[in-house]
Amino acid sequence: MIYFNCAATSFQRPPCVADAVLRAMNGFGNASRGTADAELDAARSVFRTRKELAELFGFDAPERVVFTANVTEALNMALFGLLNPGDRVVATDWDHNSVLRPLYQLELKGVQLDFIHADRSGNLILEEAQEKITDGTKLVVCTHASNLTGNLLHLKKMAELAHRHGALLLADAAQTAGTIPISMRDAEVDVLCFTGHKGLMGPQGTGGLCVGRNVEIRPLVMGGTGIQSYLERQPDEYPTHLEAGTLNGHGIAGLGAAVRFILDTGVETIHRREMELTRGFLDRIRNIPGLRTYGNFRGDRAAIVALNVGDIPSSDAADFLLEEYGIATRAGAHCAPRMHRALGTDKTGAVRFSFGYFNTEEELDIAAEALGKLAEKWSS
Amino acid sequence: MIYFNCAATSFQRPPCVADAVLRAMNGFGNASRGTADAELDAARSVFRTRKELAELFGFDAPERVVFTANVTEALNMALFGLLNPGDRVVATDWDHNSVLRPLYQLELKGVQLDFIHADRSGNLILEEAQEKITDGTKLVVCTHASNLTGNLLHLKKMAELAHRHGALLLADAAQTAGTIPISMRDAEVDVLCFTGHKGLMGPQGTGGLCVGRNVEIRPLVMGGTGIQSYLERQPDEYPTHLEAGTLNGHGIAGLGAAVRFILDTGVETIHRREMELTRGFLDRIRNIPGLRTYGNFRGDRAAIVALNVGDIPSSDAADFLLEEYGIATRAGAHCAPRMHRALGTDKTGAVRFSFGYFNTEEELDIAAEALGKLAEKWSS
Repeated sequence: MIYFNCAATSFQRPPCVADAVLRAMNGFGNASRGTADAELDAARSVFRTRKELAELFGFDAPERVVFTANVTEALNMALFGLLNPGDRVVATDWDHNSVLRPLYQLELKGVQLDFIHADRSGNLILEEAQEKITDGTKLVVCTHASNLTGNLLHLKKMAELAHRHGALLLADAAQTAGTIPISMRDAEVDVLCFTGHKGLMGPQGTGGLCVGRNVEIRPLVMGGTGIQSYLERQPDEYPTHLEAGTLNGHGIAGLGAAVRFILDTGVETIHRREMELTRGFLDRIRNIPGLRTYGNFRGDRAAIVALNVGDIPSSDAADFLLEEYGIATRAGAHCAPRMHRALGTDKTGAVRFSFGYFNTEEELDIAAEALGKLAEKWSS
Repeated sequence: MIYFNCAATSFQRPPCVADAVLRAMNGFGNASRGTADAELDAARSVFRTRKELAELFGFDAPERVVFTANVTEALNMALFGLLNPGDRVVATDWDHNSVLRPLYQLELKGVQLDFIHADRSGNLILEEAQEKITDGTKLVVCTHASNLTGNLLHLKKMAELAHRHGALLLADAAQTAGTIPISMRDAEVDVLCFTGHKGLMGPQGTGGLCVGRNVEIRPLVMGGTGIQSYLERQPDEYPTHLEAGTLNGHGIAGLGAAVRFILDTGVETIHRREMELTRGFLDRIRNIPGLRTYGNFRGDRAAIVALNVGDIPSSDAADFLLEEYGIATRAGAHCAPRMHRALGTDKTGAVRFSFGYFNTEEELDIAAEALGKLAEKWSS
């Protein structure tokens, strides 16, 4: 199988990741539920992973790196934990259902929700940002890269605009953590949500959020913390404030190994390689008749190319690629309903190719050949 | 190390568990985010695990087995998703902070909260159940086994009492899933919450809840579901209704292998073995001077023995066992503040020994010797 669905999960990972999970499963107790070596090893591994993530994200408070089951839980925690009825929040058409559905729910409870729209090419209409981010705004939510077009948002510009009006900036780095350099410090991001199993190449069941020192988030989940057990509420100290119950110590050990691999390799190196693959793919498919790509291909981006061939429904196209060439892509709506509507692809969906560090040029050749055949089929 | 902290997490697991995680990490895509073999294999593994858990728990709706990061999240989901301001809920002194803290939070929002108390011996005062579970009660929450004393609650009796008054029964099986036979059907349990990494011997990062067909729970977390992407709220269909974002497919694969091992071995066999170990331990420590155990040792129970030796603080005792004999136990409050208060051990804590299927009689011998030495030290 040729795996071009890296925006859904990492399929190929550095071997150190599974090794670390295996070691954890064979040697770890429950982090912070005892003092034997097994438990201390688990606790140390968890804290080391917080430190590595903080280093990766240019974040100076490793104890405020909070682990969750996935980025969806992290985003829910941030949104439900920050917003109150009457608050104003501004989001964008790029946002994923993991942002949209919590916001629609909050809207039902009296939160004022507004969107920065995308134009027909998928670009965010930045003049709207100027209009909509006003002094009454509590929070600006933005996706660092669209999971459909791969286009990047300039986090620092959004943060400056938000801060000028006293709002916080929450960035969803689901598609960029581990593959695009991010510095929370430089970009002035207040809360960064990440998933562990995509660009970070860790195991599924990992993710989290980095909560800036200036930000107070209410817990989403309360329970055992191993400390202050007689307190009736969740303790105030981070990371415990937002973490309850047993952490995924086995998964976090794998995530730590993955982040260490990324730090050693360099995010810049990974990003450069993914851009080579993306450009290489675009070069190879440029002249295929009837093939249309979505989004903006000038400048920096995530390693995602969404396309359609003629009027072939995206699911049929993806089936052809899979059945005839063993190429895994992702068809349909990609949990990005507003973005598909903006692009006018809400009826057809799109075929999303997403590349990872371990993909090869030979795989691109096969994909280009496959798309050529698909276009022939369509035009014949 | 001798691991007698099985109530905190499983340390020794059947080798099939780590094997399954490794296979998943090397072959799975994202379950329900694509149609390649990698994704279908992941989706099938997840569904197989739901079916196995349903079989294990005598539950007839595998699609209503919902996965969460741990039992704490499952309990939060059930409590916040069932209760509204004005509702009456009855819990017990046995409950863990994973139940208590969400309930105290709900009480602040207008939920009426009452407790069935435990007496000085740790027994629940069942006459209070008769008094407090009344026609206005919406929910009865109970822990199947106290995580401190190991004493068992008769789920069916509680369910009958709850149902007689139109209330639902929510059972926290954190300490019993996989080690004590449970049939939701026979015991008439409406919602069962379980953790994957304790008695079920699966990886950390797994857990969930079985939601009876008669029960409606609001989602705690909303987001991408891979289906019905244009719907603004979480879809109504189970399990999607309560699951958002990427599942821990790697961990769930391990959990599935663990549950298969338990089904093949037989929960009754595992329980019998754990009772042999518990009785064997009690026999060996019976005559140690100054040693006091907590809870009720008549009848069936979970494989837990909490104790203190003289007036030695529990953390000092646990340190001695660990440093001198390499025995891992758990001292302190065990996230069970109400139970410690009932027993009068809220100042000292207790040393909790908890046994698992893979512990041995030789390990019990060493533990008894160690406790004997500790008692000598105390009395000298």
